Amino acid sequence: MSTATLIIDLDAICANWRALDGQTACETAAVIKADAYGLGVAKVGPALAAAGARQFFVAVAEEGVILRRALGPGPTINVFSGHMAGDADMIREGNLTPMINSVDQLLAHVESLPGHAFGLQLDTGMNRLGMEPSEWAALRDIALAQRPTLIMSHLACADDPSHPMNAAQLKNFADMTEGVEVPRSLAATGGILLAPDYHFDMTRPGVGLYGGLPFLDATPVVSLDVPVIQIRDVAPGESVGYANAFVARNPTRVATVSAGYADGLIRAMGAKATMTHEGRKLPVIGRVSMDLITVDITALKGTPEHLQLLGLHQSVDTVAGFAGTIGYEILTSLGARYDRVYLTA
Amino acid sequence: MSTATLIIDLDAICANWRALDGQTACETAAVIKADAYGLGVAKVGPALAAAGARQFFVAVAEEGVILRRALGPGPTINVFSGHMAGDADMIREGNLTPMINSVDQLLAHVESLPGHAFGLQLDTGMNRLGMEPSEWAALRDIALAQRPTLIMSHLACADDPSHPMNAAQLKNFADMTEGVEVPRSLAATGGILLAPDYHFDMTRPGVGLYGGLPFLDATPVVSLDVPVIQIRDVAPGESVGYANAFVARNPTRVATVSAGYADGLIRAMGAKATMTHEGRKLPVIGRVSMDLITVDITALKGTPEHLQLLGLHQSVDTVAGFAGTIGYEILTSLGARYDRVYLTA
Repeated sequence: MSTATLIIDLDAICANWRALDGQTACETAAVIKADAYGLGVAKVGPALAAAGARQFFVAVAEEGVILRRALGPGPTINVFSGHMAGDADMIREGNLTPMINSVDQLLAHVESLPGHAFGLQLDTGMNRLGMEPSEWAALRDIALAQRPTLIMSHLACADDPSHPMNAAQLKNFADMTEGVEVPRSLAATGGILLAPDYHFDMTRPGVGLYGGLPFLDATPVVSLDVPVIQIRDVAPGESVGYANAFVARNPTRVATVSAGYADGLIRAMGAKATMTHEGRKLPVIGRVSMDLITVDITALKGTPEHLQLLGLHQSVDTVAGFAGTIGYEILTSLGARYDRVYLTA
Repeated sequence: MSTATLIIDLDAICANWRALDGQTACETAAVIKADAYGLGVAKVGPALAAAGARQFFVAVAEEGVILRRALGPGPTINVFSGHMAGDADMIREGNLTPMINSVDQLLAHVESLPGHAFGLQLDTGMNRLGMEPSEWAALRDIALAQRPTLIMSHLACADDPSHPMNAAQLKNFADMTEGVEVPRSLAATGGILLAPDYHFDMTRPGVGLYGGLPFLDATPVVSLDVPVIQIRDVAPGESVGYANAFVARNPTRVATVSAGYADGLIRAMGAKATMTHEGRKLPVIGRVSMDLITVDITALKGTPEHLQLLGLHQSVDTVAGFAGTIGYEILTSLGARYDRVYLTA
């Protein structure tokens, strides 16, 4: 077998959900868009439902339909992109709750699915999704008369507790929803960690469930072990990989392992990355190629059968640092070729 | 519907295969590893077989088994990673031809599957996969007695015709295979374009089939149209997206479109990218987020329903340039959420 093994600890995901739930006095939803941040919604969804989550969030209606199949009836499935043209059948059949982003979406929703549940997304300054303050001021009474299930907004800078944008968005959200009796939600993982003011009636953790920053105390969720295909000794002056990107200065023992950027191991990490063997860090050398990575294992005594990229010794965020990106992208890029093993007690 | 539409032109892939086949006098295989470079092996494999390809290459045995289901019996399916521990059942049942990379692999293969077809991969200087010259010298007679179907190696610098590594690897390959009567293969897309000396008995184009460099004259294969969720007017001084990464200097019309790095639109492209509408380039602003991208559409008169990232106006390699990577990674990163439409006459 030459595909890598991605181990996903469902109990760790549930432990992270409980830990974040324990930081607030309100309801805690679970964001499992993008196939549960790359980890598999068909496994992660039911695990979180069993742990007690009753509210889920996905990005688009298509994801909601897939999640409904996994969850069965009961839990609420909210859709961040709202009600787009062509979504009505999916929203009805999947019993999805679109987060309405604009007047146009509200009209489309009440016309095509009168009486069907919906929430409202307000823009409090991020300018990405949600109704503008002026739009909301004009629409508020009409929209509230349709009995939305939730009013939400999203923070642009919650990963940085010192950013003044957080307080500005909090004030905007409080102002825009003053006197409203509908349940309110502002905080994702970062917002949960900011302060209780940000929690309102429901939080929506995503990345923290999967072990990523800014939830520093998350239980690690994923490990990735990559099989070694071949080991060779490279003499000084010899090159390794595409474009001769590595040239050996000393006698070097090189392992070629079976994963590459087609498996989501972002090419930009290149020679800034390390892999590990029994906790020992080993430098990646040369370029990350489509299906293969070469690693300097001179420091090892034996001949390893696997090297590890993600796990207890290198977190998702450590690996993100190699590639100059964020843990979120490492997770959602994890590829389809892995042998996925789900752990649960 | 709020997922993006990825249109894959199967006829263009076949046209590219024929065009590369027409540049040589030898057999032309097709490399369809990594799910046919992200485009879907279940569609691309049969299309290329119908176009005349009889030899296919995948990265790992698991991919070979999937491809065999798509192709049925007949075409040869070669596996670059060779014969790894645990592969024997897949190799036998899928009738796969492993490219043996080492003495260890050769022993494992002839012990577990005596008489089963295999090829040999030689290292001619890339130091990634394949037998070293010394290993090969010791093993050559024994290996040849087992009647391999192919002897191959891979070029490290073929995308750069001026690189001296090309001639060095060509000489090594010719030296290592002198007097051998087994069919030989050295060139992938880049090698095909270098010179006839590099063609030997079989070429193995990959990226060129899918419209990527270094095959400059490839027919474009993919286009990606992303639906607009919402359009808003942003006033000077307002920010857009995570970390307030964009701040408007002038009144700006902003479209939020429904795709992000979870769909393989690499986060590193950030504000260096453009999308297009009817050929007009429109700057991405702010950060690429997991499911959403924001675009400055101030230059447009109307309200577009979709913006295009990939297509006639922006090639795979142009988009790769936004992210500081290569077209190969753009292709293999294309995500699972797209509505995939296959074109064929």
